[in-house]
Amino acid sequence: MSLETISQHRSFGGTQGFYRHDSAETGTPMRFSVFVPEGEGPFPVLWFLAGLTCTEENFTTKAGAQRVAAELELILVAPDTSPRGEGVADDPAYDFGMGAGFYVDATQAPWAPHFRMRSYIERELPAVIAAGFPADMARQSITGHSMGGHGALTIALRNPDRFRSVSAFAPIASPMRCPWGEKALAGYLGEDQAKWRDYDATALIENGARVADILVDQGEADNFIASQLKPELLETACAAAGIPLTLRRQPGYDHSYYFIASFVEDHLRWHHKRLTEAA
Amino acid sequence: MSLETISQHRSFGGTQGFYRHDSAETGTPMRFSVFVPEGEGPFPVLWFLAGLTCTEENFTTKAGAQRVAAELELILVAPDTSPRGEGVADDPAYDFGMGAGFYVDATQAPWAPHFRMRSYIERELPAVIAAGFPADMARQSITGHSMGGHGALTIALRNPDRFRSVSAFAPIASPMRCPWGEKALAGYLGEDQAKWRDYDATALIENGARVADILVDQGEADNFIASQLKPELLETACAAAGIPLTLRRQPGYDHSYYFIASFVEDHLRWHHKRLTEAA
Repeated sequence: MSLETISQHRSFGGTQGFYRHDSAETGTPMRFSVFVPEGEGPFPVLWFLAGLTCTEENFTTKAGAQRVAAELELILVAPDTSPRGEGVADDPAYDFGMGAGFYVDATQAPWAPHFRMRSYIERELPAVIAAGFPADMARQSITGHSMGGHGALTIALRNPDRFRSVSAFAPIASPMRCPWGEKALAGYLGEDQAKWRDYDATALIENGARVADILVDQGEADNFIASQLKPELLETACAAAGIPLTLRRQPGYDHSYYFIASFVEDHLRWHHKRLTEAA
Repeated sequence: MSLETISQHRSFGGTQGFYRHDSAETGTPMRFSVFVPEGEGPFPVLWFLAGLTCTEENFTTKAGAQRVAAELELILVAPDTSPRGEGVADDPAYDFGMGAGFYVDATQAPWAPHFRMRSYIERELPAVIAAGFPADMARQSITGHSMGGHGALTIALRNPDRFRSVSAFAPIASPMRCPWGEKALAGYLGEDQAKWRDYDATALIENGARVADILVDQGEADNFIASQLKPELLETACAAAGIPLTLRRQPGYDHSYYFIASFVEDHLRWHHKRLTEAA
């Protein structure tokens, strides 16, 4: 497994790097970014999964998270949102294909060969991080935005032993019940909706998946809240399951990284508290 | 004077907006960004001038300054770096023409009709800000990066009564004595170097221009430090003139916005202190 350094920048006393490696899961070169604080480590790891149309760059350049990660001594990992490149199937829409991997392992043609973002994030990339960075893989947490909020919630719910905590910014609460998710899950997984439930946070909770608690920030001026994000579905599922959900509806905030930047410090502190409590 | 709102985003309790207006100076539509903190105002104004290839977006999306501006109750104004659009002269190089206005009023063909960034920043845009935003124009400060650091220094030195304070990130200390500046000043102003001195911070200081003090951050791993930026020239000029210069050479930092983001809080606090002292 060879890891190529694309660039490194000193940032708040630590190092913000961009990296590329050949992924066995996706069969493509994959990019990701890692922020490593100053010092020897090993450091706990916070994963950030990005939303539709994004790459590893959006969170890294726009969220302003490095300042807080440096203070709290957290590694930040930001993967890309899909395989890319020649030979990778695509769709002209922004919400399907490249930039829209939905963190699933696709089973349908033409997506199945490369669109394996679930296994990439759950299995392959953690091994790359463990081997290449001063990461304490016994202490991981996960967050994400929009499609990546869906990714963070579903990956945490399926892997409760791996993650100490989970949060999300404006997540897609139930892809099975919104146009973005219905299109993507049908395309990647086929029409049998029983197979979609493993990729739907509310369905996972209904099926018995549990995490200790969840933090969600949701802008009230977010154009997608009613049609796509539907935080009330997560609220209902968590209430029924007895999962403490801190859902903060933030007046006036939209779906952009200005929203994420405004609240990212709260999320890092939420995760840091849980990453540093006695296990 | 009509001001068009391109977009507005809630950010740290305030409003981050992008705006467009028809500039009489440049004869083109010009874009700029403004962050306004929560509250009634009027608020002091900190100008940020960006570097080569940049627009009003770079600082706005990458520097993470809104958090501190919200806390300190400062308005942030980030203009574009040149006129743009059909009919505007351009050059294929990244360091001349569009995206490289150097904050000068050009006198040479084909640049003279539109490249009037000095008058735009010194006269026209302040009137737009005063009319359209809750700005206390009696309290202004200015900073910038690289070419925009040159802009901030020269504009402050030429207008000591307008600005309470000036700082810069990796500024071009003396455009008359580096390849970027020699090319731009010759192109925009012609070969008579006597006319360049009004656009050179060190020459302005040698000619008697004064400010109370200057803060400069400079990354030591900046690829441009020896060939283009030459902070030692500013250091020498300030020492000879008795201008207190705080020049911080930051080990390991490069020329990127990761560098700016790491130190922007210090600059905002520097300006805030001077903006809120008794005049």
